[in-house]
Amino acid sequence: MTHKSYIETNRERFLEELFDILRIPSISAQSEHKPDMQRCAKALAASLVKAGADHAEVYPTDGNPVVFGEKIIDAARPTILVYGHYDVMPVDPRELWNTDPFEPVIRDGRIVARGADDDKGQLFMHVKAFETMCATDSLPCNVKFMLEGEEEIGSPSLYGFCRENRELLAADLILVSDTSMIGPDVPSITCGLRGLTYMQVEVTGPNRDLHSGHYGGAVANPANVLARLVASLTDENRHVTIPHFYDDVRILSDDERRDFNSAPFDIGEYKHSLDIGDIEGEEGFTTMERTGIRPSLDVNGIWSGYTGEGTKTVIPSKAYAKISMRLVPNQDFRKIGELFEKHFRAIAPASVKVDVKFLHGGAPYVSPTDMPAYKAAEKAMEEVLGKHPVPYYSGGSIPIISGFEQILGIKSLLLGFGLEEDAIHSPNESYGIGQFFKGIETIILFHKYFTA
Amino acid sequence: MTHKSYIETNRERFLEELFDILRIPSISAQSEHKPDMQRCAKALAASLVKAGADHAEVYPTDGNPVVFGEKIIDAARPTILVYGHYDVMPVDPRELWNTDPFEPVIRDGRIVARGADDDKGQLFMHVKAFETMCATDSLPCNVKFMLEGEEEIGSPSLYGFCRENRELLAADLILVSDTSMIGPDVPSITCGLRGLTYMQVEVTGPNRDLHSGHYGGAVANPANVLARLVASLTDENRHVTIPHFYDDVRILSDDERRDFNSAPFDIGEYKHSLDIGDIEGEEGFTTMERTGIRPSLDVNGIWSGYTGEGTKTVIPSKAYAKISMRLVPNQDFRKIGELFEKHFRAIAPASVKVDVKFLHGGAPYVSPTDMPAYKAAEKAMEEVLGKHPVPYYSGGSIPIISGFEQILGIKSLLLGFGLEEDAIHSPNESYGIGQFFKGIETIILFHKYFTA
Repeated sequence: MTHKSYIETNRERFLEELFDILRIPSISAQSEHKPDMQRCAKALAASLVKAGADHAEVYPTDGNPVVFGEKIIDAARPTILVYGHYDVMPVDPRELWNTDPFEPVIRDGRIVARGADDDKGQLFMHVKAFETMCATDSLPCNVKFMLEGEEEIGSPSLYGFCRENRELLAADLILVSDTSMIGPDVPSITCGLRGLTYMQVEVTGPNRDLHSGHYGGAVANPANVLARLVASLTDENRHVTIPHFYDDVRILSDDERRDFNSAPFDIGEYKHSLDIGDIEGEEGFTTMERTGIRPSLDVNGIWSGYTGEGTKTVIPSKAYAKISMRLVPNQDFRKIGELFEKHFRAIAPASVKVDVKFLHGGAPYVSPTDMPAYKAAEKAMEEVLGKHPVPYYSGGSIPIISGFEQILGIKSLLLGFGLEEDAIHSPNESYGIGQFFKGIETIILFHKYFTA
Repeated sequence: MTHKSYIETNRERFLEELFDILRIPSISAQSEHKPDMQRCAKALAASLVKAGADHAEVYPTDGNPVVFGEKIIDAARPTILVYGHYDVMPVDPRELWNTDPFEPVIRDGRIVARGADDDKGQLFMHVKAFETMCATDSLPCNVKFMLEGEEEIGSPSLYGFCRENRELLAADLILVSDTSMIGPDVPSITCGLRGLTYMQVEVTGPNRDLHSGHYGGAVANPANVLARLVASLTDENRHVTIPHFYDDVRILSDDERRDFNSAPFDIGEYKHSLDIGDIEGEEGFTTMERTGIRPSLDVNGIWSGYTGEGTKTVIPSKAYAKISMRLVPNQDFRKIGELFEKHFRAIAPASVKVDVKFLHGGAPYVSPTDMPAYKAAEKAMEEVLGKHPVPYYSGGSIPIISGFEQILGIKSLLLGFGLEEDAIHSPNESYGIGQFFKGIETIILFHKYFTA
């Protein structure tokens, strides 16, 4: 039986099994979901064994468990280590979801659920590709799976897990589907990821909420002060003002920039799809460059004072913001965190107290386009999607990828099938059924060409 | 029986009856409390009749009901119309309360509860002063009560109620206890109130929350933009930058400013009590002036994006802020609202859409120190508190007070007994039992001297 006919025969079951995984609300950022992380890990370990793994275990960590499973057909053959994450983003604003985020439904040929793409849907392609190769006696190499439950919060436990399990995880390549293609008709392979430094700041003014009439105008309002401080972090050219922020940024050559900007991109369609009147970003760079090769600074959350219905005439005692910076080679996420804290404390006026916390971070990553795995991926993708894939610098971050290289000494290939329309991290996240099955086929071919 | 001995005899009952009123969570800003507004109005009407009113009714309005009650002893005698409000501020941040905001307790001689001072505690002094005068046959004039349930949200319904009930409300003076004294040993009578314009702004960026990695640096982040816009509303001298904002501000003469600053004020104690390293306000003015005779602009609330536990790498679609401005004579709160909206829309970049709402407002008020009621209040206060009261310009606002003058043609006397330590609008609001009973005595004497 060919793998194509096996997939065809089991199409419905593949989807049903994915839905069972999607129904588990494994939100790593929210501690009340701890039990769901356990449930999800157990379910995935079971699905690996069912798919054909020699064995699969749930490894406890200080945080959420890691699922490890493997099938060793011949120690002499190459080994692929598949990495994915079963944790998902929070779902708020909940009211913007048209359906229950954890009750997957199919709409217009798309799976709608939190995690449908990122990353349950994409990691499950590997489970089913693996099952198909096993069932059709076409598995050409050894395969290992490492599925974590903390990617969305910076993989705090996985670094230690890798350090303690170097032998268990030994492999020739780490294969990851947690990225996107440029477009449905523009196959691409991600060869660059941005790093991340995620901070939280707290500004404290008076020791209690005050009546804004009795004190307004005479006492520093921490919400006004926070607005001033945040605003000052970028200048009128949208350049980050933190001293030494750009010191280590790798500057591309003119040739590199030309190649980089050659990838198809339609600014009109971009603005239209986001319903924005204009784009905004660092002076002197294209939109592709602003997300691909330049660092950025964004407020991910800000809150202070009365945010309920109606009015409250109060000067809040405290104001908070979550601020993250996307980093590019060769910025160091820890150094950037220190520069941010030093600067933020320096610019705070004497009228308030500030506290600055480092929440998480990760290093940028570059995946060379000349390694054999990249070539094998090009071939597999072109065969399934009918077009030669282009290299793509994603603005996103998978902090642990650079960790793998440092700790395990193994390169990663980022073979992602997501699309912008999947709206990952947003309400109504979805994943095209077509992409799901094309992904399975491509992964199977990749194993073949990589091993050949 | 003298009023003093009557008060002494009924001391405990007075407090118990006040506690029953404080137990009703009559928060006007939150619609789920609608039934509580009704309950509170009915309870107050009953307490007026019990105190000796000829009758008392609950008048429905488009919003929360108005309680009206009166005792007419002789149409030829002067009439005092007592105004107060039974609605209270929201209680959040709830976690900062040491006790249930709606289960009053006595701590260190103070009543601790939301509304203990503002304004249930202060209006109840009038109910009990009225009861005492009735019970001791010493009521020297006609008394009317008008108690509303929307003061904290700008009294939207009371303006119409006054227009429709001019005859019912006819009086020689409106007596109000909804303000504070300068200090426990510094009796004062409020002769100035600031006005208020309360706005809400909404900044919309992309049509959905976005992944901050894929879009960070290329798309305007509404939270960053809002921070920039809010920061730009005041300059480095803490001067409001809205064009024409100061056009109508009344400038005091040097003599007026000297008198104004003669009121006792200890900046060290002020900073210490708020636990702030430094004060901050408009360049060239004292702290007293900044709250008393100068307008101000404060963020009362700001929110956008992910504000929960942990991290979420998102560019929010929307960002919001509640921004209020305190106004002084002769600023027009409607005109200021229009100036604010025009300016805010003008400074918004093309990369976002903004919406600006006027939530509520009120005019500033000046209560002349040469009117007979003021003189009577001076005499009554000095007799009870042992010191001659000083005139005080409060930074607070009671928007309806100027409305009374416009609609009913009646001046108001602001005879308040609150103290800064009462922390109105803040967690753990409280009211000194001593102030409560001194207030009752002063109010009784005021009726006597005003009528004499």
